Amino acid sequence: MSVTVPQGFEAAGVAAGLKSTGKPDVAVVVNRGPLKVGAAVFTSNRAKANPIIWSQQAIQDGVVEAIVLNSGGANCFTGSFGFQTTHQTAETAAELLGISPGDVLVCSTGLIGTGDEVFRGKVLDGTRAAIAGLSSEGGQDAAHAIMTTDSVSKTSVVAGDGWTIGAMAKGAGMLAPGLATMLVVITTDAVLSPAEADAHLRAATRVSFDRLDSDGCMSTNDQVTLMVSGASGVAPDADAFRAALTDVCADLARQLQGDAEGASHDIAIHVTGAASEADAVEVGRSVARNNLFKAAIFGNDPNWGRVLAAIGTTAAAFDPYAVDVSFNGVRLCSAGAPDRPREEVDLTPRATSVLIDLKAGEASATILTNDLTHDYVHENSAYSS
Amino acid sequence: MSVTVPQGFEAAGVAAGLKSTGKPDVAVVVNRGPLKVGAAVFTSNRAKANPIIWSQQAIQDGVVEAIVLNSGGANCFTGSFGFQTTHQTAETAAELLGISPGDVLVCSTGLIGTGDEVFRGKVLDGTRAAIAGLSSEGGQDAAHAIMTTDSVSKTSVVAGDGWTIGAMAKGAGMLAPGLATMLVVITTDAVLSPAEADAHLRAATRVSFDRLDSDGCMSTNDQVTLMVSGASGVAPDADAFRAALTDVCADLARQLQGDAEGASHDIAIHVTGAASEADAVEVGRSVARNNLFKAAIFGNDPNWGRVLAAIGTTAAAFDPYAVDVSFNGVRLCSAGAPDRPREEVDLTPRATSVLIDLKAGEASATILTNDLTHDYVHENSAYSS
Repeated sequence: MSVTVPQGFEAAGVAAGLKSTGKPDVAVVVNRGPLKVGAAVFTSNRAKANPIIWSQQAIQDGVVEAIVLNSGGANCFTGSFGFQTTHQTAETAAELLGISPGDVLVCSTGLIGTGDEVFRGKVLDGTRAAIAGLSSEGGQDAAHAIMTTDSVSKTSVVAGDGWTIGAMAKGAGMLAPGLATMLVVITTDAVLSPAEADAHLRAATRVSFDRLDSDGCMSTNDQVTLMVSGASGVAPDADAFRAALTDVCADLARQLQGDAEGASHDIAIHVTGAASEADAVEVGRSVARNNLFKAAIFGNDPNWGRVLAAIGTTAAAFDPYAVDVSFNGVRLCSAGAPDRPREEVDLTPRATSVLIDLKAGEASATILTNDLTHDYVHENSAYSS
Repeated sequence: MSVTVPQGFEAAGVAAGLKSTGKPDVAVVVNRGPLKVGAAVFTSNRAKANPIIWSQQAIQDGVVEAIVLNSGGANCFTGSFGFQTTHQTAETAAELLGISPGDVLVCSTGLIGTGDEVFRGKVLDGTRAAIAGLSSEGGQDAAHAIMTTDSVSKTSVVAGDGWTIGAMAKGAGMLAPGLATMLVVITTDAVLSPAEADAHLRAATRVSFDRLDSDGCMSTNDQVTLMVSGASGVAPDADAFRAALTDVCADLARQLQGDAEGASHDIAIHVTGAASEADAVEVGRSVARNNLFKAAIFGNDPNWGRVLAAIGTTAAAFDPYAVDVSFNGVRLCSAGAPDRPREEVDLTPRATSVLIDLKAGEASATILTNDLTHDYVHENSAYSS
């Protein structure tokens, strides 16, 4: 049910022929109110797709009544024609829904450079079909329609004290800070102002999606949108809502990690003893992006030397010769020298934990990543995406 | 002949049992003068191996009489015992050569964390055996002894106006700015002061080794050393010497690129139209480190969208919607939109050229990298290194 679990939302997913497989590829989520509040965070990549450029303008007033999402083409670097396609998508949806185009967000995902007339025709037809099929039971169809190379659809629901949060996500690789080739729609029937929605969304994504770094490759099309109907009539406790929203985002982030293209390990890099949270994130990210480390994990090799070589490239405050490194609970390096034998570590389970104690302070952070595998290379070399 | 081509140098390479294959693994190069000038550049990784810590001190006075290099163990993060091993290596060489330990540099390469008593014994025995076998014909043996996963030895020689430069290098992956798991020894019989040697070496490495970025992974053990005997009696023209030294470094860099572990393409990323050289380097490096781009090249897919997605993550001055991107001479993207059809590009040759025109200025730079292949994953997951 995902995004249609909270009161006040309808959704649909249809097949518009954008995917050569004939699977669903256009989704629409509509907020029936009474509130029409929205907030969104976007990729920090300067190379932005047309739907990102559109949505960043449309979200300015904090009002979102509908969102149209397509897979099967990123509509990125497709010239002014491509921007007009996004604009026409919003106008088509707005006309059918009797709302303003400026209150319609658009998301696209797929191959960069895809956005010709055929693409436009299919997106517009799909938008019409999806709106004709809107239903308060349509959340799962929408979640399916945004899938690309995902092997499973990703949804999450949390119930609060009189309000609920529902969410759907797509993404399977190309995950990086500043978000990823990742589209997320979160709905809630809680009563929130635009400023509250924005603050809660930024706080939740900062410690969830922004700490998922599957392969260090930042997408041009990422967008996380929160739509607020207020249909429950309940103004939530701020801390409780933020915690629930963070749980939903963290749950989806773990689902995205678990479905990353070709991965055989889900790696949690825990950095403790940092002088600041920013240092902890920088150190964790340097390991998450180190191909030698990632290939070693694929080979079930607890190669702590590659961890130290990675963190030594950062500007974080620590003494490399004071650091402890543990794999799956076994401390292999202590204060710059070997500790337990690496044979004590079993890296065959998919869930992998690396603990780095910088011995430089009290701050900590966890970065989620995946290993570098034959299948990752295969999936990203054999197919354009 | 490599490092023994210039007058005034002797070298040797011996098998000391550090490699399980029984191949040569300890090399010594000695400068017989009359000058004993040296200069060196080191990895900028803060996680430094013991030989790096030693050599950075020993080079301070600009005097180098000998260098001892071993493969089969990095002697990195091996505690104070490991540092004593490096110290004893320099002392052993110095005693046999009748020179000061402070004029002996040490280099090691291999697995981080390797440096126990057995390792120490073999390194010291190997140092003694190599010094006993020093010869003015020993350059090639030395070049062989520093190989690890290299498939070929790397040497380069340039003759100037009355002086010569000889060089050897090892490295096959883990190549990144701030150098790589790369050991280089360059010799010359030209007459240079320590300040001249240092300035020439820094200028030459800045535009050669520092622009080779095989896999973005910076090593803990990299060192490039220039040894100056002055035996030709010729003080070279400064510009001519710097050009020749740059040629030697660029030649070795290309050899290292061509032998990168598992690579199937040698990729030159040319960035033009940059507002500054630093911008050009940053942009080129962002592409060189993008796994999706690297996997696409392996798949012979001229995926220009991944180039734009990579450069959009930089802070360089340019408009993403003004950029042109060409693959092997075919312009696929012009001013933010598709240009020529990607079918016109043939990526089957190993040599691959990507041209990025930022349209933002007059500066340029070229970064050398490799593709991301099944063999890269295999070689870096199946074996600890």
